[in-house]
Amino acid sequence: MPDETKSAGQGEPTESIVPEIYAHCIVRTLVLRIDDQPGRLGAVASQIGRDGGLVGDVTRDWLDLSHVYRRITVYVNDEEHLEKIIANIRAIGGAEVLDVVDEVLQIHEGGKIEIHPRVGLGSMEDLQKVYTPGVAGVCDRIKHKPRLARKYTWLANTVAIITNGTAVLGLGDIGPLAGLPVMEGKSLILKELSGVNCVPILLDSRDAGEFIATVERIYGGFGAIMLEDIAAPMCFEVEAELDRRLPVPVFHDDQHGTAIVVLAGLINALRQVGKSPADVSIAVSGAGAAGTAITRMLLDYGIKDIVVLDRSGAIYPGRKGNTSRKEELARITNPGGVSGSLDDVVAGRDCFIGVSSPGILSRDAVSKMKPGAIVLALANPLPEITLTDALEAGAEVAMDGRSMNNALAFPGIMRGTLDSGASSITSRMKLAAAMTIAESAEAGRLLPNLLDQAVHRRVADAVAAAAG
Amino acid sequence: MPDETKSAGQGEPTESIVPEIYAHCIVRTLVLRIDDQPGRLGAVASQIGRDGGLVGDVTRDWLDLSHVYRRITVYVNDEEHLEKIIANIRAIGGAEVLDVVDEVLQIHEGGKIEIHPRVGLGSMEDLQKVYTPGVAGVCDRIKHKPRLARKYTWLANTVAIITNGTAVLGLGDIGPLAGLPVMEGKSLILKELSGVNCVPILLDSRDAGEFIATVERIYGGFGAIMLEDIAAPMCFEVEAELDRRLPVPVFHDDQHGTAIVVLAGLINALRQVGKSPADVSIAVSGAGAAGTAITRMLLDYGIKDIVVLDRSGAIYPGRKGNTSRKEELARITNPGGVSGSLDDVVAGRDCFIGVSSPGILSRDAVSKMKPGAIVLALANPLPEITLTDALEAGAEVAMDGRSMNNALAFPGIMRGTLDSGASSITSRMKLAAAMTIAESAEAGRLLPNLLDQAVHRRVADAVAAAAG
Repeated sequence: MPDETKSAGQGEPTESIVPEIYAHCIVRTLVLRIDDQPGRLGAVASQIGRDGGLVGDVTRDWLDLSHVYRRITVYVNDEEHLEKIIANIRAIGGAEVLDVVDEVLQIHEGGKIEIHPRVGLGSMEDLQKVYTPGVAGVCDRIKHKPRLARKYTWLANTVAIITNGTAVLGLGDIGPLAGLPVMEGKSLILKELSGVNCVPILLDSRDAGEFIATVERIYGGFGAIMLEDIAAPMCFEVEAELDRRLPVPVFHDDQHGTAIVVLAGLINALRQVGKSPADVSIAVSGAGAAGTAITRMLLDYGIKDIVVLDRSGAIYPGRKGNTSRKEELARITNPGGVSGSLDDVVAGRDCFIGVSSPGILSRDAVSKMKPGAIVLALANPLPEITLTDALEAGAEVAMDGRSMNNALAFPGIMRGTLDSGASSITSRMKLAAAMTIAESAEAGRLLPNLLDQAVHRRVADAVAAAAG
Repeated sequence: MPDETKSAGQGEPTESIVPEIYAHCIVRTLVLRIDDQPGRLGAVASQIGRDGGLVGDVTRDWLDLSHVYRRITVYVNDEEHLEKIIANIRAIGGAEVLDVVDEVLQIHEGGKIEIHPRVGLGSMEDLQKVYTPGVAGVCDRIKHKPRLARKYTWLANTVAIITNGTAVLGLGDIGPLAGLPVMEGKSLILKELSGVNCVPILLDSRDAGEFIATVERIYGGFGAIMLEDIAAPMCFEVEAELDRRLPVPVFHDDQHGTAIVVLAGLINALRQVGKSPADVSIAVSGAGAAGTAITRMLLDYGIKDIVVLDRSGAIYPGRKGNTSRKEELARITNPGGVSGSLDDVVAGRDCFIGVSSPGILSRDAVSKMKPGAIVLALANPLPEITLTDALEAGAEVAMDGRSMNNALAFPGIMRGTLDSGASSITSRMKLAAAMTIAESAEAGRLLPNLLDQAVHRRVADAVAAAAG
């Protein structure tokens, strides 16, 4: 059983419902003075668990002869939940909560990124080199040979991340300003994991044509455009049209980043159950941005039997009420012309991939899947079926969205794309990314550690090579 | 005589023409091994001067018992000029040119700025705090209270610098891409001198309406908008309209940054000659972006007798061919209804301020100015009259554009504006900046050292106080 399955809960074998806390939680750090006796930390952690809180990192700040001072990060439902946990920790004795810190807010104060000079400005000479008169010669070179902007400005190492805030994380349509912390987070991740500069641009428009025209006028200072947290179906038109019009690559992470990571996980899952991509049958639940991109990626990878489902069940050609996009999706999938509900379609299949809604897949359906069944229940923040339920119902491999993070893909993708100077991110490049991520996982795991910089370097190299 | 006048030439009293090199030059660093004997550096520097090159910084890299290894920055016309200088240095003996380095290009490689994380990403815990699930709580707070974006994102410390590249330095209309090194230079200066993040945005549009609409859609991620290197008259409409429409401050540096520094210099010049602002008469040559902004700023400061001139001479109400903008300028200036040529207007006045064309002011006109005449000949890159000529013709104070750098103003202005949370940069704030810059100059100088961070801090504080 892969390690990933442990993320299904607190490790209690009887637990079969993902706690609501996975959907909405607040993060706080408890600063504790605990008696330095064996078992005291265990008692505190157990108490937090009994009260339904999750424990994150536990670190030691300080020691004296009779106490250990610890910081324990807890994930709790809300302030009231936190108060209850603190009261109960006090009640067990031997531990005192000295302080409660909102480290997440502290970390966000002033923003998570900044502009940083790469050149000193200590003297008049420096000023004359970075600014007038020295800079004029650099401008002049670029004027006569625009390609030199890639060498003598930050352009070739810089992407814009552009959002209108209409589909942010699990929060939905919160507008661009409230989405800015997510953009900064991605910028931070991009820089840390692959050295790419990423500038958040909040684009206040819900009209595809206006959005496209605006990006068309401001893309010139960037080596690539990342689209982010734009709701479907607008995201499809915006990405396709910008990719067609702009000479720089355009990448909508919510579509392709997700698809790449899902394919990487699936490659390793198929390896674990000993099945070949060409022979497996897959049900994809969800026909939005992620579901559509995953489906196309699976087809590109050589998977033949895919049925995509939306709220109304299996999508097949000519289905009543199909939009043109769903009709097209139906034509390139569903070779057997299958119709029916999710449970109907999943029964007898090798693999379920869900990017839809919590709790919609039954244990019964999973129990009717083929031997060696794979369940990737990725609905955000709560899965289509808990991993515990899926495994107990007979799935051989199960994974949820918590361990499938796009940050495994986009840093290497953007790095490799910029390095190659490619004008577009082709499906060949995306497949190279997925396969390299899959290869980078440790034995027995579906995906590699996303904080491992070497993984992102390998992905970048593979993407650049596939662009050539 | 103020120190600034020394910038007129190489210090040769007979020289009265500004060398062409001030207009167009290349910057190179000579790496030399020079015999370690008294007078050898002097011989090398003199030879460079004889050949018409200018010497920048001279530093020592290394010593041995018989040689000094030096780096000498030279400002020369072109590669051919450089070759001649190198050949002649070799010819004088006792010095060997080991290498010629283009440090300006080297400094620009990869760009002059980057995005830098302000938060670490070393563990899964970090990731969960800066990204999902932790970030969701921050997004949610901002959604419910948008003002919190100022606290929990980089917004309140970040400005966009937006250009269409139609009026870049002395280079003119080179387009936005070739202007990017200048934008990066300003970004670097802003960060180094006042800690403000500044993101270059290249806006590919020459239509005022389109430009305005584009900025309107993307301003949301920034605490202020700097407009840069946009040609007149489009810059007037763009700035005025954006300032009216946007809830964040808008600042066109080529207008107001220039005006603030000119007023600061003028305040100290008037102090040196012992004249009162209310009593002086001024001729402003140039009715473009800088000339217009300077004129309005002088009026705000309380100067009453100003005549603005363009190519056709003095601008007065009802003059044939006046645009509506010039007609308005005429109505708020020229109290005496003066007409005539530049020389006519300058004669008998206290002060000349030029932001127009090289060499257009005659010695004769300067000689007819009032006693204690002030000549600020700021045309870029060559002045309306050389400082040597102006001083010989009787001016008491003279200054050219080389020592009047907008970088004295915009870092403190932006810092103070962001700190105050002001929604607009008022003339009160601009006047506060100019007066603070003036007060910060050392005795006997017109302007302070722009690399002195304390000056920018004082300007910021004054601007923030004036906003309150």
